[in-house]
Amino acid sequence: MKTFRIAVIPGDGIGKEVVPEGIRVLEAAGRKFGLTFQWDLLPWSCEYFLAEGRMMPEDGLDRIRHHDAIFLGAVGFPGVPDHVSLWGLLIPIRRGFQQYANVRPVRLMPGVKCPLADRKPGDIDFVVVRENNEGEYSSIGGRLYEGTEFEMAVQQSVFTRHGVDRILKYAFDMAQRRPKQHLTSATKSNGIAITMPYWDERFKAMGAAYPEVRTDQYHIDILTAHFVRNPHWFDVVVGSNLFGDILSDLGPGCTGTIAIAPSANLNPEREFPSMFEPVHGSAPDIFGKGIANPVGQIWAGAMMLEHLGCPEAGQAVLAAIETVLASGPRTPDMGGTASTEDVGKAIAQGV
Amino acid sequence: MKTFRIAVIPGDGIGKEVVPEGIRVLEAAGRKFGLTFQWDLLPWSCEYFLAEGRMMPEDGLDRIRHHDAIFLGAVGFPGVPDHVSLWGLLIPIRRGFQQYANVRPVRLMPGVKCPLADRKPGDIDFVVVRENNEGEYSSIGGRLYEGTEFEMAVQQSVFTRHGVDRILKYAFDMAQRRPKQHLTSATKSNGIAITMPYWDERFKAMGAAYPEVRTDQYHIDILTAHFVRNPHWFDVVVGSNLFGDILSDLGPGCTGTIAIAPSANLNPEREFPSMFEPVHGSAPDIFGKGIANPVGQIWAGAMMLEHLGCPEAGQAVLAAIETVLASGPRTPDMGGTASTEDVGKAIAQGV
Ligand SMILES: CC(C)[C@H](C(=O)O)[C@@H](O)C(=O)O
Ligand SMILES: CC(C)[C@H](C(=O)O)[C@@H](O)C(=O)O
Repeated sequence: MKTFRIAVIPGDGIGKEVVPEGIRVLEAAGRKFGLTFQWDLLPWSCEYFLAEGRMMPEDGLDRIRHHDAIFLGAVGFPGVPDHVSLWGLLIPIRRGFQQYANVRPVRLMPGVKCPLADRKPGDIDFVVVRENNEGEYSSIGGRLYEGTEFEMAVQQSVFTRHGVDRILKYAFDMAQRRPKQHLTSATKSNGIAITMPYWDERFKAMGAAYPEVRTDQYHIDILTAHFVRNPHWFDVVVGSNLFGDILSDLGPGCTGTIAIAPSANLNPEREFPSMFEPVHGSAPDIFGKGIANPVGQIWAGAMMLEHLGCPEAGQAVLAAIETVLASGPRTPDMGGTASTEDVGKAIAQGV
Repeated sequence: MKTFRIAVIPGDGIGKEVVPEGIRVLEAAGRKFGLTFQWDLLPWSCEYFLAEGRMMPEDGLDRIRHHDAIFLGAVGFPGVPDHVSLWGLLIPIRRGFQQYANVRPVRLMPGVKCPLADRKPGDIDFVVVRENNEGEYSSIGGRLYEGTEFEMAVQQSVFTRHGVDRILKYAFDMAQRRPKQHLTSATKSNGIAITMPYWDERFKAMGAAYPEVRTDQYHIDILTAHFVRNPHWFDVVVGSNLFGDILSDLGPGCTGTIAIAPSANLNPEREFPSMFEPVHGSAPDIFGKGIANPVGQIWAGAMMLEHLGCPEAGQAVLAAIETVLASGPRTPDMGGTASTEDVGKAIAQGV
């Protein structure tokens, strides 16, 4: 029997409500597939910040460095500014553990109302691969002439060959393994005319090593329009930290799955633990009512199983999710009246 | 009789096909409303570049500085890299003439197939106001360690108080004049944590002077999802150069009007001429067939009339566009068989 040590960070708001359901389903999958989990619960959060003055202990990363994975709920709560909560917890983990590949599936699921006209399950099924460590999310910059009419804020975007090549390689490898073998690059080299032409150059150079993979590229402006008009065009879409962030919310927005989409922050070399979280946030407005949709967290758990080398278990969880999406129970955001726990239990039973 | 001097830059590709139809319709509006135009045709384009080594003459801006407006088709053609064609013509005009307010309407029109489910004309009607002079489109940056494994490209985003405040003021003024008095700001202060918090601060400060205007803000990732899921939420949406660029393609993408959306590059102080263009590009793939849709160019002409102080003429052109969209003739991209000229003539007749 295999045992996995998982660092669990429920975080804030509905993160605390959906993480237990994720664990419930993973336990069920464990029973079925002969896996056991050691869940190490960590209270790192905005509440922790209010008590301790930091989002996690100073040696936080060291405490979870040797875990097999990190299972995260959501970070951020009113009263603690985003740049404190996110840059004190989520982003240091992504960077400290070189989780440079952020993988976010976009899929039209049975039973989920699609906001696009005339699309049915099967029509939309692609993956956004987002660079997760550098690019536009730098901490280089600042202000000048503060408080005067000449005031300005400047911020550097940084694209390194190391950082760009490793995410492109990851995306090409993924595209090569998929039946359609198609990779789309998000760019804006006509407007962001210094860093983005560099991205394009590296995309072209990397492509030479993958002759089987069909490639194309679109400027981010028209690419967002194509997500709406032609979502069936896409297979794997790779983008910078910012463009990947946008596309991985817009994609699930187009499939009606924004509340249930998962996100895997991967360190593909497995030198450090990878982190699995839902795309949604801490949703302070519905926290405490027991009505948060746990599917994103559970789907993130399915991706974690896959990453841990248990793809059958991951597939079983995904199949159970699909059954419950199609036939209920459903939380209010999906038009039902079920509680967070009802949905978690139903999926656990279906595994 | 009022005479306007208009600098006409058809540019490249289908720009050369749609601009004449724009002129045809404006002439028709002129006859009806007692306006005359002097059209000064300028050949600045990629073709010009191939002959002259530059996109426009060195004193190009001086030659059109005293015109009443600029009527532009499209810029860019295969064989001339984007950073040459756009940074040699379009962007120098936007910047040189301080056309800092880029205004792009998003409207669901009768007769246009909407890619969103269950939306009808009237449901979606908002305006994207884009900062058009600074921000992410800077030319500050470069490469280091070129050709080695340590290679990197860096680029600065620059947000000045001057630049941010004037676009926010423009957007607040517009929101205040509209019935809904609602302004949405696009941000990403949780990720782009240096420049975007500055944008948010200025948004809040400017809002204090507009107590009647209801404001909200969304991070650009979820905002793109709301464009798809809740387009009826929006009235005026203001964004930085990059975010505004994305939202003003995505918006028309959601209303099915990407091929017909117009764009006004305004110098609100009228110290310099403003520029009117369609959102679409030069479309080399369909150039020369006479099938390009001229509606975007004509709609840009309607915005130009409005800017020139002839709102009734602008409204008449827009009404004629709506009639033709609803009942044809239509170019192939809208499901018809009409030519560029057929559509132009029909709209001109309807004015
Ligand atoms: C062509 C390009 C540089 C331009 C921009 O990004 O400004 C275009 O996309 C636009 O929106 O007018
Ligand atoms: C909360 C925010 C910093 C984060 C990001 O932009 O990376 C979120 O939007 C995400 O996509 O995980």
